[in-house]
Amino acid sequence: MCRFTLYLGPPIRLSTLLTDPEHSLIRQSYHAEERSEPLNGDGFGIGWYAPRIWSEPALFHQITPAWSNRSLESIAKVVASPCVMAHVRAATPGSDVNLANCHPFGYGGYLLMQNGHVGSFRLIRRRLLESLSDEAFNLPRGSTDTEHLFALFVDELVRNGCPVDPGKEGPMDGGGALELARRLSAAITRVLALIEECGDGESSFLNVAVADGHHVAVCRYDTDPEESPESLYLLHGEMYEPAGRSFPERRKEDEGEAMVVSSERLTGDPRWRAVPPSSMLVLDRHAPPRILPMDDSGRLVEA
Amino acid sequence: MCRFTLYLGPPIRLSTLLTDPEHSLIRQSYHAEERSEPLNGDGFGIGWYAPRIWSEPALFHQITPAWSNRSLESIAKVVASPCVMAHVRAATPGSDVNLANCHPFGYGGYLLMQNGHVGSFRLIRRRLLESLSDEAFNLPRGSTDTEHLFALFVDELVRNGCPVDPGKEGPMDGGGALELARRLSAAITRVLALIEECGDGESSFLNVAVADGHHVAVCRYDTDPEESPESLYLLHGEMYEPAGRSFPERRKEDEGEAMVVSSERLTGDPRWRAVPPSSMLVLDRHAPPRILPMDDSGRLVEA
Amino acid sequence: MCRFTLYLGPPIRLSTLLTDPEHSLIRQSYHAEERSEPLNGDGFGIGWYAPRIWSEPALFHQITPAWSNRSLESIAKVVASPCVMAHVRAATPGSDVNLANCHPFGYGGYLLMQNGHVGSFRLIRRRLLESLSDEAFNLPRGSTDTEHLFALFVDELVRNGCPVDPGKEGPMDGGGALELARRLSAAITRVLALIEECGDGESSFLNVAVADGHHVAVCRYDTDPEESPESLYLLHGEMYEPAGRSFPERRKEDEGEAMVVSSERLTGDPRWRAVPPSSMLVLDRHAPPRILPMDDSGRLVEA
Amino acid sequence: MCRFTLYLGPPIRLSTLLTDPEHSLIRQSYHAEERSEPLNGDGFGIGWYAPRIWSEPALFHQITPAWSNRSLESIAKVVASPCVMAHVRAATPGSDVNLANCHPFGYGGYLLMQNGHVGSFRLIRRRLLESLSDEAFNLPRGSTDTEHLFALFVDELVRNGCPVDPGKEGPMDGGGALELARRLSAAITRVLALIEECGDGESSFLNVAVADGHHVAVCRYDTDPEESPESLYLLHGEMYEPAGRSFPERRKEDEGEAMVVSSERLTGDPRWRAVPPSSMLVLDRHAPPRILPMDDSGRLVEA
Repeated sequence: MCRFTLYLGPPIRLSTLLTDPEHSLIRQSYHAEERSEPLNGDGFGIGWYAPRIWSEPALFHQITPAWSNRSLESIAKVVASPCVMAHVRAATPGSDVNLANCHPFGYGGYLLMQNGHVGSFRLIRRRLLESLSDEAFNLPRGSTDTEHLFALFVDELVRNGCPVDPGKEGPMDGGGALELARRLSAAITRVLALIEECGDGESSFLNVAVADGHHVAVCRYDTDPEESPESLYLLHGEMYEPAGRSFPERRKEDEGEAMVVSSERLTGDPRWRAVPPSSMLVLDRHAPPRILPMDDSGRLVEA
Repeated sequence: MCRFTLYLGPPIRLSTLLTDPEHSLIRQSYHAEERSEPLNGDGFGIGWYAPRIWSEPALFHQITPAWSNRSLESIAKVVASPCVMAHVRAATPGSDVNLANCHPFGYGGYLLMQNGHVGSFRLIRRRLLESLSDEAFNLPRGSTDTEHLFALFVDELVRNGCPVDPGKEGPMDGGGALELARRLSAAITRVLALIEECGDGESSFLNVAVADGHHVAVCRYDTDPEESPESLYLLHGEMYEPAGRSFPERRKEDEGEAMVVSSERLTGDPRWRAVPPSSMLVLDRHAPPRILPMDDSGRLVEA
Repeated sequence: MCRFTLYLGPPIRLSTLLTDPEHSLIRQSYHAEERSEPLNGDGFGIGWYAPRIWSEPALFHQITPAWSNRSLESIAKVVASPCVMAHVRAATPGSDVNLANCHPFGYGGYLLMQNGHVGSFRLIRRRLLESLSDEAFNLPRGSTDTEHLFALFVDELVRNGCPVDPGKEGPMDGGGALELARRLSAAITRVLALIEECGDGESSFLNVAVADGHHVAVCRYDTDPEESPESLYLLHGEMYEPAGRSFPERRKEDEGEAMVVSSERLTGDPRWRAVPPSSMLVLDRHAPPRILPMDDSGRLVEA
Repeated sequence: MCRFTLYLGPPIRLSTLLTDPEHSLIRQSYHAEERSEPLNGDGFGIGWYAPRIWSEPALFHQITPAWSNRSLESIAKVVASPCVMAHVRAATPGSDVNLANCHPFGYGGYLLMQNGHVGSFRLIRRRLLESLSDEAFNLPRGSTDTEHLFALFVDELVRNGCPVDPGKEGPMDGGGALELARRLSAAITRVLALIEECGDGESSFLNVAVADGHHVAVCRYDTDPEESPESLYLLHGEMYEPAGRSFPERRKEDEGEAMVVSSERLTGDPRWRAVPPSSMLVLDRHAPPRILPMDDSGRLVEA
């Protein structure tokens, strides 16, 4: 089911998220605590935006486990970023471990990653692909449910006229974080409708995050009436202290809040709080986090 | 454009094909001589059948170059097989180097590999997928033209009632080598028709090999009126001598002919001969090689 | 601390050891049960001899985890061997995951693998290397304690005039299994003496296996007065039944006993028995297993 | 023999060195022009310092070829650095392709990489290791001549009291670029003396670069009386224009000169000039490049 961590705020070193905290994402790659299987060793991926976001985000994907990757450890100490997505993968049985299947997935200025599982994926895949515009149809290079969900998300961007290329002002600057959340929600609604139509009743677990460098949307969602969604936590505030050290390190007045969202809490900091089930986190670096409920069909309840 | 070598005959050690000859496939991975670019370093794959063919073929795929792979070199010395496919890849620009894109591709008892390029692939891909039965539609795990061509080939098998699972007598035993060649030809005909309909005039180069362990079909084909197809050679006979040594090593009376087909000649043996353009090699371990012409639409001319 | 499995007997398919049993070595790569940490995901290695042992053993090493390796799964179904070593690695913290550090290690006709840890390794390494003949000194390509122990073992072979190259009759055929066990014991004695001299009191855990294709020696040993050695089990007999299926598959009268040694029992078969602490298993394909005690300095007690 | 490129100057994006120029290092990984074999596909490595050099340099090593690495391409667009070392490897025959053998090698605040070959390496290796202090003796994790040369270089640092850990002011700040060049020269002198003593007359080709983030030393050197050293070029000045674009991009008055050293010229810029044979480039970001001759024993001629 995977584990992920994301960050939006003043630039921080990647190590502050990935290796320094006592329950860092790298630790979660072999000792995850909030799922029955502690192992997320089927490759990893880090996506991050340059400090001033003048380009597409960098994507560092590897099919080897995160816990033993010297390059990851080394790069994390040197690179700083204001918007980071990091993912350690536990491949669904039968799913390949290869580079094209590593999260986060990127297109233009956007990133998406998932901790979850699209129910009845093999049964809906053909219909899902048929529903896509050519631009989105040509996106998937691998075989994961997540990359197909990403294609739906990009399809929603394209259909709604959202610019896909990164620019100085950020790709989503016209719409902002709420627009990003709406597009993610619309993609999920389409997936759920396909499952309703062609599925075999298997539940979906959909903790999904999208970002454009300036804004982030993350949902905690599932369709199982008897089980909770996968775990998801938010920490935000002026200071974030892993292992006794403050970060972000060079907090300036105008840089906005620091926000960390993670499958499991990275530290013992008491300010971590669980994201409610069936809801969407809407994050903007210049505003406090918002949480919007999602209905049974995956739609945002905005009022 | 890649390079490949295949073998059908009495069991031989893989090293006899892959490392011993002076112009072995491993040498062709960095010093190919019959294409302008000598480099085929984007991963490799070896598919081989067990000496008695009681199972699916083994597939050994790696994304690292063949020339430096110690495991490949070591395994090749120890493993013997009566039917081998080996491929070194030169990825089309823009195409990913990952495990799902390595040849040969396998399904049930069958293998397929290509040295070539499906013209206008991105333009026909959507239509190609639409034309497939669900079984074939669910096959591709990567993004290559070859894997999509393989899906068409499997679609042809399924539609014609050919058993896909390997058995004691071999999957194609009812039909034999000619049946295998017909299915490959039918897949190519479908690709060419799609290109005719949706393509932009880009030429296709289609040296494609399929096997079921007992039989092999390989075509040398292109659609460019001004250029020859990629090079392809056949050697067959009682003995095959790379670097002064005889192989197959333990020739028995009833084991049939040894046949090697390769993008480039492995040795200086004068018996290598070029496969004619626009033709299909039809190989059966108990019969001499046949060569059938193919017409402009990719159909076998059998009469 | 790693996990390993080895086999000596009539040729069997590798899958019979590696993937078919309910607690196969591949399962032990993520769900080991007899060590506190269940994870052995830092690469793997398989070494096996050709059915007739006319060459060096094959070595298939990968730095990715065994549980997701499609090539391993596929090769294991097709390859048969009369002598197999298989190892899944849990790297010591600070130790690199790279190809040169994968077990088993090979030289000429010999293989060696370890589940354990040489105490004070960094402190004795310099003296250990100084003690080697040039042939053994030039052996290590990586940085593990095990590869240095292997260099000591090869040093013992060379100093005792044992032929290193594989031959038709097998490299150790003059000496046999007992000779192999003596050389392994001598290497361990040298390591223990170095630790005694330069170490800092850290305990050693030395479950080590060596093979020449015809014979195998495996010890279960440690130097900690308060802890048992790592777990180690032996199964031998006419038939070995994983998951309800008999193997070796084609038992012939003259092929000798089947012997499996494994860090953890592969099956629920009641004939598995624990190897006693401080002892050496001496295995010959034409004789019943022998177990010899080892004294405090690692010497075999033969009388 | 490998190819390398290094940079010292105002921070630039890595892509400006690695991918944008028409004859970039990535192009040199498959189409090197100034050596007989154009291929440098045995892995690669990038080492770079953070924009303000408050830590050890990052090291990104991969055993796959540089030309197909999507992560490299992506990271290079986003990361900026004032001091970069980049290397594409052509492994000496018989040398392993694995992570521990990738250049540049790092220790504390230092990096070293080589394009060349230590003559008679196997013959001098034992004596070379014997000559090292324990700190340097424990450094090598792989099997290359270059990593052993790096151990000699670190040995020289340690013996001369140079601080190894990176600090705010840079590790070599007391000594500066000339001190760095002296240490490299001393290491080379020791290698050449060992070859003189134990070698078999094989020539050495030693284009070697070392850096501490603030300073760089690079030599172009060989011991063959009949052949030139490997090619090496320097470009420096206010502007450096690959493919029509100026870089460094945001030139400020106080940031010092931009200096690029490369095995082959990255661009058609007429200011590239060949580094003379038997000489050492001494680079400081606040001073013009100096070139010092080296004598037959590898010593700097400073007067």
